[in-house]
Amino acid sequence: MSSVWGNNIQISIFGESHGPAIGVTVHGLPAGEKIDWDEILFQMERRRPGQDPAATRRKETDTPEVLSGLLDGTLTGAPLTAIIRNGDQHSGDYSNLLAMPRPGHADYTASVRYNDANDIRGGGHFSGRLTAALTFAGAVCRQILRGNGIAVGAHIASVGDVQDAPFDPVAVTAEQLEAMGEKKFPVVDPAAEEKMRAVIEAARMEGDSVGGVVECALTGVMAGIGSPMFEGVENRIASIVFGIPAVKGVEFGAGFGATRLRGSENNDPFLLDAEGEVRTATNHAGGILGGITTGMPILFRAAFKPTSSISRPQRTLNVHTGEMDTLVVHGRHDPCIVLRAVPVVEAAAAIAMLDMLM
Amino acid sequence: MSSVWGNNIQISIFGESHGPAIGVTVHGLPAGEKIDWDEILFQMERRRPGQDPAATRRKETDTPEVLSGLLDGTLTGAPLTAIIRNGDQHSGDYSNLLAMPRPGHADYTASVRYNDANDIRGGGHFSGRLTAALTFAGAVCRQILRGNGIAVGAHIASVGDVQDAPFDPVAVTAEQLEAMGEKKFPVVDPAAEEKMRAVIEAARMEGDSVGGVVECALTGVMAGIGSPMFEGVENRIASIVFGIPAVKGVEFGAGFGATRLRGSENNDPFLLDAEGEVRTATNHAGGILGGITTGMPILFRAAFKPTSSISRPQRTLNVHTGEMDTLVVHGRHDPCIVLRAVPVVEAAAAIAMLDMLM
Amino acid sequence: MSSVWGNNIQISIFGESHGPAIGVTVHGLPAGEKIDWDEILFQMERRRPGQDPAATRRKETDTPEVLSGLLDGTLTGAPLTAIIRNGDQHSGDYSNLLAMPRPGHADYTASVRYNDANDIRGGGHFSGRLTAALTFAGAVCRQILRGNGIAVGAHIASVGDVQDAPFDPVAVTAEQLEAMGEKKFPVVDPAAEEKMRAVIEAARMEGDSVGGVVECALTGVMAGIGSPMFEGVENRIASIVFGIPAVKGVEFGAGFGATRLRGSENNDPFLLDAEGEVRTATNHAGGILGGITTGMPILFRAAFKPTSSISRPQRTLNVHTGEMDTLVVHGRHDPCIVLRAVPVVEAAAAIAMLDMLM
Amino acid sequence: MSSVWGNNIQISIFGESHGPAIGVTVHGLPAGEKIDWDEILFQMERRRPGQDPAATRRKETDTPEVLSGLLDGTLTGAPLTAIIRNGDQHSGDYSNLLAMPRPGHADYTASVRYNDANDIRGGGHFSGRLTAALTFAGAVCRQILRGNGIAVGAHIASVGDVQDAPFDPVAVTAEQLEAMGEKKFPVVDPAAEEKMRAVIEAARMEGDSVGGVVECALTGVMAGIGSPMFEGVENRIASIVFGIPAVKGVEFGAGFGATRLRGSENNDPFLLDAEGEVRTATNHAGGILGGITTGMPILFRAAFKPTSSISRPQRTLNVHTGEMDTLVVHGRHDPCIVLRAVPVVEAAAAIAMLDMLM
Repeated sequence: MSSVWGNNIQISIFGESHGPAIGVTVHGLPAGEKIDWDEILFQMERRRPGQDPAATRRKETDTPEVLSGLLDGTLTGAPLTAIIRNGDQHSGDYSNLLAMPRPGHADYTASVRYNDANDIRGGGHFSGRLTAALTFAGAVCRQILRGNGIAVGAHIASVGDVQDAPFDPVAVTAEQLEAMGEKKFPVVDPAAEEKMRAVIEAARMEGDSVGGVVECALTGVMAGIGSPMFEGVENRIASIVFGIPAVKGVEFGAGFGATRLRGSENNDPFLLDAEGEVRTATNHAGGILGGITTGMPILFRAAFKPTSSISRPQRTLNVHTGEMDTLVVHGRHDPCIVLRAVPVVEAAAAIAMLDMLM
Repeated sequence: MSSVWGNNIQISIFGESHGPAIGVTVHGLPAGEKIDWDEILFQMERRRPGQDPAATRRKETDTPEVLSGLLDGTLTGAPLTAIIRNGDQHSGDYSNLLAMPRPGHADYTASVRYNDANDIRGGGHFSGRLTAALTFAGAVCRQILRGNGIAVGAHIASVGDVQDAPFDPVAVTAEQLEAMGEKKFPVVDPAAEEKMRAVIEAARMEGDSVGGVVECALTGVMAGIGSPMFEGVENRIASIVFGIPAVKGVEFGAGFGATRLRGSENNDPFLLDAEGEVRTATNHAGGILGGITTGMPILFRAAFKPTSSISRPQRTLNVHTGEMDTLVVHGRHDPCIVLRAVPVVEAAAAIAMLDMLM
Repeated sequence: MSSVWGNNIQISIFGESHGPAIGVTVHGLPAGEKIDWDEILFQMERRRPGQDPAATRRKETDTPEVLSGLLDGTLTGAPLTAIIRNGDQHSGDYSNLLAMPRPGHADYTASVRYNDANDIRGGGHFSGRLTAALTFAGAVCRQILRGNGIAVGAHIASVGDVQDAPFDPVAVTAEQLEAMGEKKFPVVDPAAEEKMRAVIEAARMEGDSVGGVVECALTGVMAGIGSPMFEGVENRIASIVFGIPAVKGVEFGAGFGATRLRGSENNDPFLLDAEGEVRTATNHAGGILGGITTGMPILFRAAFKPTSSISRPQRTLNVHTGEMDTLVVHGRHDPCIVLRAVPVVEAAAAIAMLDMLM
Repeated sequence: MSSVWGNNIQISIFGESHGPAIGVTVHGLPAGEKIDWDEILFQMERRRPGQDPAATRRKETDTPEVLSGLLDGTLTGAPLTAIIRNGDQHSGDYSNLLAMPRPGHADYTASVRYNDANDIRGGGHFSGRLTAALTFAGAVCRQILRGNGIAVGAHIASVGDVQDAPFDPVAVTAEQLEAMGEKKFPVVDPAAEEKMRAVIEAARMEGDSVGGVVECALTGVMAGIGSPMFEGVENRIASIVFGIPAVKGVEFGAGFGATRLRGSENNDPFLLDAEGEVRTATNHAGGILGGITTGMPILFRAAFKPTSSISRPQRTLNVHTGEMDTLVVHGRHDPCIVLRAVPVVEAAAAIAMLDMLM
């Protein structure tokens, strides 16, 4: 089913951006775990719009209300459900989209799929706002992972043509990942921030948008997690990460870059580290061989297309008249979704990893 | 479960490369469909090793035996099961792998995952040979798709640094895709073949291997197929394609390239074509918006790492002695898996698409 | 996952009886369907406690609030989520249950399963109150079924030793089933009501409870729905009906009674009816052969054990002291759950049938 | 999908009775487990026809061939696949069934479901022969359960009106269950055998058949296994047991009998046993409360309708002519399937329990 994901941890996401509320139910969480509510709110805040000039200035109220599964700060084992009420809705902004589906957006495909009954306001169930629900679920899962020695973190690997330095695929640490989560603009190389902001600001000034890449890492995952074929770590992570709106590509380790390497370059030799643990000298595999973890850091990258909602005029079809016309999309949209996508990618990775660990 | 995939069409793959047989059961196929057995064999032949100097010279017998689900050339509605007996096994070739797991291969992770009980000979259930089962299932599914006006085809988009011309994302046709399937070395630009073969042969001469990219297209898919979030076309295709050994990345449409575009460039304007159908002027979306098909060709690319089994000596850990040692992998391995991967990627795409259509 | 059910229609139930709210998300409903809200409320009302002297006098507020999936009375195709706020909670009533798990109730098994972290008040996620969520989901599904010519209805087949007349397995009609849903005390034979009420009242007067059987029928289901083996109509209905608290048995058609028949008696001969449709002369099969519908009415019966929460003193273990002690369960409980279970069984049947039809 | 069952242990059954072979793949079995092949064959033999005068005299070759997942008697962690070749087929016996679908059999419903393309010979995928595949899978699972201290056993609880004594729901032991499996005619009360045989023989002499009930128990299952709602032990066992052909009812513990009890009678008081373990004084719950095991023996009963294939003439529809006609079913059929169903029910229970334990 479209908005349900998972085997052992199962998330069920609901809501439309202009309906009463969005939310998520997480089934299968371990009973008895203490949850740090402030950290939940902190993760929600990272994703929330209106926080940074590089993101949309649209306000959203992202405070979750828990309906089920949490008692006195402890998971009860019952399904964990949180809802987030919608507010700050300007439904009028979307009235012209019935006639002119936005290029690059799901307006048209949703109307075909749902017989024109879908709620087009704000993208409805296709809205990026639904990632708040994913972020909530991930915020819970990452706490449980941390208790098992696993850290999750991500950074903006690129915006347009501007590259950040990558995580060190062998030496990246939990501390580095946690510290990255504290940053307002998470990059490895501080020099990248200014250049990226300039690219984003230039796009915004022109009523345009720009894409980018998020790189995510997990440390502390023991060897032997995952399965061959269709339940491999790559399959599972990809199947959830492609659920984040605007993701058009996912790669692990050296990824597409590995296609330009020789086997003798790409293969990661095994060795014993100082503690006598089996490790690899390099980590082109991104911590995964045959779908199963090697014990090295897990690394993957998600490609985000430029935000499809742009304010500059676009020539496109008016499906009511059958004529080409000029569309101007109103409303406040992110000129680059990548900044706010960072905690969402982390959330998806945390959910996927906990699902495989349970 | 690791080797089961699908919702409406469900495949269950079994076998180990040096066991008695490998095979696949396909559940949910529509009863009454006529199956062209010769085409099944043709698809199996495309994947089979020993066919081309750019591939391994190892011989395999890939003739499937149907045990269930097919009567007088017609699907009965019962689960379709085919097995392929194993032969030409040189178990002796693998005896040293217990002590020295091959870098880049699943030997080590599988031994951790399966408590050293897994059959290491030939990679066991992790062997590329298992893709013969996937190819069989896909060969059936593509025939049913064809009856619904849907064509599937792929080509070698790159080998190492050598690029083929891409499919035209707007104008690619069923005829072109079918014709591609007839080629011994499927490329769009005939000039690419010689250069690619040179790169492969150079790697082989040095006992090395090289990676590459397969680009796959589907034409004739109506708009409105797929779902938002986790059952989108991207999620479903990625979740099966990452089940093909050596795949480390999957991207749709402009994919990672879209991250370097502006929204105004990447958005595909809608228009009416000569038949009055809604189409897009460009197809950076790869035929998918919001997880749902647009009616345009679906395009995706899968990154294959270089074959991990290489014959040149590698320094790696001997897990029995705890010392670094030199590993020489015997046996006949593909210097580049990409050529033989083309029909496998097509098969995975066909299975995924039929699953979503049913 | 425990509180998720379904393939094509997928329900995700959440909540605990003394938490903020309970609710349900229904994924996969067909977009564009009009929903009659008054009928939803009517179905909720049938299940609600405090309605009939034969049921508990505990008050519950069962008014659902829709958060997602419904716009202007029409399903949007997004997940349909409704929540029901909890009220009238007397948490103090349950304080002694930690030491003395109620015999026949899930207190003990839940505490083992959830490491004592489960919310024991009111049974938490195990409470019969959760069936309000199931009833909501079923109330939506039955409207869609009705649009497809399918009716669902149930009656109290027995309470203790008192039997109602059964539905006529061949001639039961949609009209009869709909009319049954209007009754405050749904029985086929009006004479059964008084006797059943007497049995229930006798149990109540003694601080005790009594069990019973609900018989449910579906009419208008075309032949050919369902699948052999594990996705048969029996499997699917049983797998959801056993999710209703207190159900300890499910049988189809002649059920356990068929074990005492000869094949020549139990087999239902085929014939053509006046409209030229294939029918069966009798319907011991309950409308299902080989897991697939025959086109005849579907009939099944669910056995409900007597309510485990009874007010008369019970000798049982105090797990804190390790000594036997006397437990008196406070609170207002149904002396017979069967009356209020009727719409819940119908709801489960409606969900299961719509899932198989989609 | 119809012939796939399970969450952690997943079985995929294939084959048709008159095709080349039937078989099963079991995914998710724990690597490294030793399998006793002789016991596998012994379990297969218990189910095999032609063994007892109370069963069919039709011969079948039930020797499984393992294709995958077993190396030197040890599970490798790869999917375990076994096939059983079909033989002794008298296809001619079934030629008249196209025109005259057998009453009580799936001939008619299968032809509707599968557009007349299903293999009608011997029932095809609906044949009771497919239970040989289930028995194989169960034979593996029960060995793993035994290693975890869990025993599975069943007996013929009734044939027609003749009742066996029930298992003692509190005191039944692993030894008793294992001993029951050694019996040719498994009953608790030796006096029941003769009466049951007489009932079966009487039916056979009249070309008729008779139904019955199988009672199954599992001992040694710790408390806390299972989940509320839809993944309860009852739901899971019922969903697989209804996959056995001819099962029309499933009940747990006191089952339908509990509907005639008062709560004060049906509730099982908790107590501490001599070892200080929490137990219940009685076991009307059948070892399951709230879908979760109590630590007491698990008990359930499955109702088998009388074999639908009977040799005495039946008046039924000729669908080709539209006229009523007399059908005589040839071939050798069980006058009572219950005897041979005993190991099949055990197998289903073993698979379900291992799935929940993993």
